[in-house]
Amino acid sequence: MLLRKPAGWGLVGQVNLSDIYKPVQEDLKKVERSLEEIADSEFPLLAQLLAYTLKNGGKRIRPALTLLSAKFFSYDLNTLIPMAVAIELLHTATLVHDDIVDNSPIRRGKPTVRHAWGENRALLLGDYLFAKAGSLAAGTGNLRVVKLFSQTLMTISGGELRQTGVTFALSRARDYYFAWVSAKTACLFSAATESGAILSHAPENAIEAIRGYGHNLGMAFQIVDDVLDFVGDEDELGKPVGSDLREGTMTLPSILFAESYPEDNLIKNVVEKKDAESVALAVEKIRNSSVIDDCLVLAAEFCSRASRAVEILSDNSARRSLLGLAAYIVERRK
Amino acid sequence: MLLRKPAGWGLVGQVNLSDIYKPVQEDLKKVERSLEEIADSEFPLLAQLLAYTLKNGGKRIRPALTLLSAKFFSYDLNTLIPMAVAIELLHTATLVHDDIVDNSPIRRGKPTVRHAWGENRALLLGDYLFAKAGSLAAGTGNLRVVKLFSQTLMTISGGELRQTGVTFALSRARDYYFAWVSAKTACLFSAATESGAILSHAPENAIEAIRGYGHNLGMAFQIVDDVLDFVGDEDELGKPVGSDLREGTMTLPSILFAESYPEDNLIKNVVEKKDAESVALAVEKIRNSSVIDDCLVLAAEFCSRASRAVEILSDNSARRSLLGLAAYIVERRK
Repeated sequence: MLLRKPAGWGLVGQVNLSDIYKPVQEDLKKVERSLEEIADSEFPLLAQLLAYTLKNGGKRIRPALTLLSAKFFSYDLNTLIPMAVAIELLHTATLVHDDIVDNSPIRRGKPTVRHAWGENRALLLGDYLFAKAGSLAAGTGNLRVVKLFSQTLMTISGGELRQTGVTFALSRARDYYFAWVSAKTACLFSAATESGAILSHAPENAIEAIRGYGHNLGMAFQIVDDVLDFVGDEDELGKPVGSDLREGTMTLPSILFAESYPEDNLIKNVVEKKDAESVALAVEKIRNSSVIDDCLVLAAEFCSRASRAVEILSDNSARRSLLGLAAYIVERRK
Repeated sequence: MLLRKPAGWGLVGQVNLSDIYKPVQEDLKKVERSLEEIADSEFPLLAQLLAYTLKNGGKRIRPALTLLSAKFFSYDLNTLIPMAVAIELLHTATLVHDDIVDNSPIRRGKPTVRHAWGENRALLLGDYLFAKAGSLAAGTGNLRVVKLFSQTLMTISGGELRQTGVTFALSRARDYYFAWVSAKTACLFSAATESGAILSHAPENAIEAIRGYGHNLGMAFQIVDDVLDFVGDEDELGKPVGSDLREGTMTLPSILFAESYPEDNLIKNVVEKKDAESVALAVEKIRNSSVIDDCLVLAAEFCSRASRAVEILSDNSARRSLLGLAAYIVERRK
């Protein structure tokens, strides 16, 4: 499948994740080793499930955010590594449970735990990962990050619950979408950055700035994710395009399309019929419409807000990485 | 259904829960109010789910244990009420997820969340309850109980995971069963008692004694639960008898029966066929066999260990309640 490159895409030039991660490169390796140790330390089935979900999993943006966010004040690996690992475990746990809720067969190019081991094991693995993450967060000895951690999981699960069975009302769809993305994705991004700031003993105004950065970055990240579900490359994404519509989920591209073409029953048909033909037609129409650019403009706005939020911090390599990440988020292809 | 009263049953005389709870009666009402407030404080669907699972739910043995366990040293309601509530929420969350794993339609005489609202909502509600519980535990300001809390959830979910897909091997069945009960039930009982002891600033030897009490009480509690699944009254239990066997789960009565009558293929038939007729026959044979008494003797031994563990504590009304609870556990009918 060819990627139709939207007009707003590529404005900031080529951005590279490994350059962005440079200030915390060595410490991210420690995070990786810690994740591997967790996977190795339990009985065979659990070890197998942990290895499957934790080893070589994804871009590690969230733990990188925790580490980078701590680079402005006191940088202490004794608390930061466990916290970065906890954030990645919490993220993994929500993915494992999400794949049950969404009935998803594929994630990152391989079968989901639900698909490969069944629902019960996926459920229990998610619970175990939540607990392990909580245990690591508590291991920092900092009660404020423990509370932040619990609050994050409450927001995520509460947000998902609120989403279940919501009927389609176009007039409020955009508000619902942003509230949902805030609870589902931005909340964990801001927990990642805020916990790094707290553990580095940043002053309150800096914590607030770094938290705001994470929130806005997370909003942009999810919007781009939802755009990629229409225009992305299936091999790079590791899942088929149009997954959201196929599951009956309205994300920003379909919401903007329905807003822009109120006379077109395209989205309504998909939501009502959910047949392969309607989905394919909707994906094709949306990817060739202007709403893709409109979405990316909105994502870029959130990234600008993220970048502005960290202006008050000292100009060091970590801040340049945070700014680079904000650029990467709208540039990325997977 | 008539209850066949086993010979070992009733040795300790009539024990009453409300008498046992007397030293913490007023504080348990605060726990109840706190649970009601949690149920009232969220959006409609979540409020409905929380009210359904939290209001008037069960015997509240675990929060009572937390409170009673704190009555030997510094009794501070500011930390004890949130902790007792956290323990009850953790318990509730594991039940909600258990009912997904076990596909259970009924609990405490009413439809399970899974059955009434579907699997996805049950899954997310459980996650929310874990998080809320963690948040309350963190609210105590005591990192040791937060770590204990996370460790408990790791033990419970890890234990359940270990249990999935284990094939039947009679020679090791009893060991498996005790390890499973320890992870599933005793672990939460000991977390309930240990957290009360920690928060009351008990010295280490007293914490260890109170933890040991909780563990042994939990072992006995689960054994009696598993016995009641064979000999209990369906109305009092709030679920049909023989549920465990029907789901293919070997508990102590069936294990002891298979050990006692190795030539009898009763249990093997049930595990292999899982048909209503084999289950009914097995339940009938087991409830009229001596293994019910054998199970209760084992439960009584755990209760004796629990009682002996608290001998080192000062003789006050709370200790009398802990001893009374140990007696109640083997006496109870539901």
